[in-house]
Amino acid sequence: MDVEKGSNVRIGLMGLGVVGSGVARVLLDKGESLARETGISLSLKKVLVRDPSKPRSIAVPSHMLTADPQDILADPEIDVVVEVIGGENPALEYIAEALSRGKCVATANKEVVAKHGLELLDTAARHGVGLMYEASVGGGIPLLLPLGRSLPANEISTVYGIINGTTNYILTKMSAEGGSFAEALAQAQALGYAEADATNDIEGIDAAYKLAILATAAFHSRVSPEDIYCQGITALAEQDFRYARELDYEIKLLAIAKQSSGIIEARVHPVLIPSDFLLAKVNGVHNAVQVEGDLVGQVLFYGEGAGSLPTSSAVLADVIALAEDIVTKRAIGPAVSPTNPATGLGPGRQLPAKSIRPISELETRYYLRMNIADQPGVLAQIAKILGDLSISISSVIQKEADAATQTAEIVIMTHPAREHHVQQALGRIAELDIVKEVCNFIRVEG
Amino acid sequence: MDVEKGSNVRIGLMGLGVVGSGVARVLLDKGESLARETGISLSLKKVLVRDPSKPRSIAVPSHMLTADPQDILADPEIDVVVEVIGGENPALEYIAEALSRGKCVATANKEVVAKHGLELLDTAARHGVGLMYEASVGGGIPLLLPLGRSLPANEISTVYGIINGTTNYILTKMSAEGGSFAEALAQAQALGYAEADATNDIEGIDAAYKLAILATAAFHSRVSPEDIYCQGITALAEQDFRYARELDYEIKLLAIAKQSSGIIEARVHPVLIPSDFLLAKVNGVHNAVQVEGDLVGQVLFYGEGAGSLPTSSAVLADVIALAEDIVTKRAIGPAVSPTNPATGLGPGRQLPAKSIRPISELETRYYLRMNIADQPGVLAQIAKILGDLSISISSVIQKEADAATQTAEIVIMTHPAREHHVQQALGRIAELDIVKEVCNFIRVEG
Repeated sequence: MDVEKGSNVRIGLMGLGVVGSGVARVLLDKGESLARETGISLSLKKVLVRDPSKPRSIAVPSHMLTADPQDILADPEIDVVVEVIGGENPALEYIAEALSRGKCVATANKEVVAKHGLELLDTAARHGVGLMYEASVGGGIPLLLPLGRSLPANEISTVYGIINGTTNYILTKMSAEGGSFAEALAQAQALGYAEADATNDIEGIDAAYKLAILATAAFHSRVSPEDIYCQGITALAEQDFRYARELDYEIKLLAIAKQSSGIIEARVHPVLIPSDFLLAKVNGVHNAVQVEGDLVGQVLFYGEGAGSLPTSSAVLADVIALAEDIVTKRAIGPAVSPTNPATGLGPGRQLPAKSIRPISELETRYYLRMNIADQPGVLAQIAKILGDLSISISSVIQKEADAATQTAEIVIMTHPAREHHVQQALGRIAELDIVKEVCNFIRVEG
Repeated sequence: MDVEKGSNVRIGLMGLGVVGSGVARVLLDKGESLARETGISLSLKKVLVRDPSKPRSIAVPSHMLTADPQDILADPEIDVVVEVIGGENPALEYIAEALSRGKCVATANKEVVAKHGLELLDTAARHGVGLMYEASVGGGIPLLLPLGRSLPANEISTVYGIINGTTNYILTKMSAEGGSFAEALAQAQALGYAEADATNDIEGIDAAYKLAILATAAFHSRVSPEDIYCQGITALAEQDFRYARELDYEIKLLAIAKQSSGIIEARVHPVLIPSDFLLAKVNGVHNAVQVEGDLVGQVLFYGEGAGSLPTSSAVLADVIALAEDIVTKRAIGPAVSPTNPATGLGPGRQLPAKSIRPISELETRYYLRMNIADQPGVLAQIAKILGDLSISISSVIQKEADAATQTAEIVIMTHPAREHHVQQALGRIAELDIVKEVCNFIRVEG
């Protein structure tokens, strides 16, 4: 290994969980080959853990372990901080302090980036350092870099996809094997694909954080988690998957961001997508993101959206890019203004203010499932309510009635309609005597 | 538009065909918005065409048009040359001269890059300029940049995919609608998806050029077109698609490069891939490339692999990256050594020599289709030849015999076997009296 003087970059790692262990392992095991490839020596100096004395599966030399964040943040020798603690605090404080002290930061923290990314980029720019977060979305799948650097000549109109592996595992299982949501969740938890408290995943919150990051990068405009309409997958029932299949659709939890005429819509919710769409075939814990640009048309990125090594792959790509920047600056001085290659966002870059379209103004097709009394004229009453609100029906499935309860289940697919009309209609339909229950409604994409 | 002095970059465009027109259109139509986004003014100065007086669909100001390459190559004001003439010569000479004169080059020329890329990168490095060629593979799909910059910590073991839209259109049509190769080709030509002389596409030569570029970038090792085993799609018959479907496979022309223990295999040929693979679902003129790395696992990139605007998207990404480099250097001097962000290859970077595995040493599964006499004991004779060469049979399809000719068609799927054994076996089988014809053999992937 023949690394020039001045090309040694020291790393402080904060967090030694699933992702942190992967990053540490790569830095310890592949250090020499990375140095050969990049001409830069990346050396792990300190690792922040809660309890340095705890036995661990990964062999990090004990002198590297510390429970004191200042051992990293206040160490002038550390050039790059890798934050993989997760959660909003104290990660946010650590990142902000690291940047303020002139350290570059690579983070996998979707919550911090989604909520505070632009402010942190400003902090980074003011201190002439880089902040990168490729690993915060889509695990190891290259997303932010190609969005920023491979498609810069495009006006991006759409970025959407499957960006939560836990829910995609559950939905894939429900689609392939039937069974209830609760059963599928329990199995995902048993296999380690879902945490004991899976709220963030199954309610779509995790996907909303990631969508905020993707949409901000794609549209060069602030999209915050609170701008994103968010509905989880807990209301999906076994029948919905059966009907979806019958209609030639799959049910997926999609994160969808679109922009046209300076107005952005951003939403996370279950959708029916046609079975022959590539996204419909993304199964299990995999992720896929589709981007549409005015020049490039549709491009899709697919891979493992989580996991120790895939996520480490993205963290390391950021660390290497930051390290190259650091080494270049040592050679030529700090004259280059740091643009963030992940987003194309540089210091002083004004993000144009764009407005966010409320979900009530969404126009799409809908799948409506309801339980009705098995008697004549029921469909006519429902159809009248829909028609009065300019919602036109594209197809209806009505199965044979349940003799015992004298009810029947009916599924209506609409043509494109306004969300607020559909919500109004569902309210009115629910009040009909002959309707036992409005069981579910699912938006349709594609 | 408020572009600082020193951030105006002048472009000479060589070629105004399908891709060139797209590039010119973007530069002329989107110049202002690109300047706003990047802070750099990209101005088109000259366009090389064969006949400046020819009427064109694109409105390039006539004073920009020239038939003399020196109007671009010898113009000291031109900073970036975009080469989209295609073909080996004179494109190669123009690129080499542009680099030698200190101009950066963005090219979409797969033939030149596949055959001469490393030498041209050396020339570029010697003259302190950049050479980029994202558009040479996969049209607008981000490939070389994510390979080089998003996955640098990975050891790439496999890069493979569908990288020729013309053949994928033909194969998709044959699979979906039946019909002969000749019919599908004729329709592709009628629709403009195939050229009048489609040799380069249907014989796999175009895909081999692109695979050489991908493999060189992925493995950091020289892979030349002549290292690549290349077999086209002309021998595929209607029945092959029927049998493939029956066996739950699709037939695709795949470009495959793998590396293990420092040995590289690289080949382009039709394959049977399982129908539930994502690549099996890539239809029509679309392209998709799958990359496998030790950390990231499998990632897949999908999109339009050709066309005026998608390819322009990739060319413009390169132009913008080169322009940023140029503007930075104007500000801080030429101290930064130019690494090619598309490949990670910088000046003086030594490419380790790796050996290429000949196709005869390939080990994979095979699909064998033959016409045999409809009489007892035939399968036994064939099976004996296969068995003698350690080729074991995984399944057999034999359809009812054709009474008129007293022949039957038989399809054999093998377990993994050595290519040279299979070739030997097919030779011996063809000599059997009871075998009318060995119709086809197709390698199986996955």
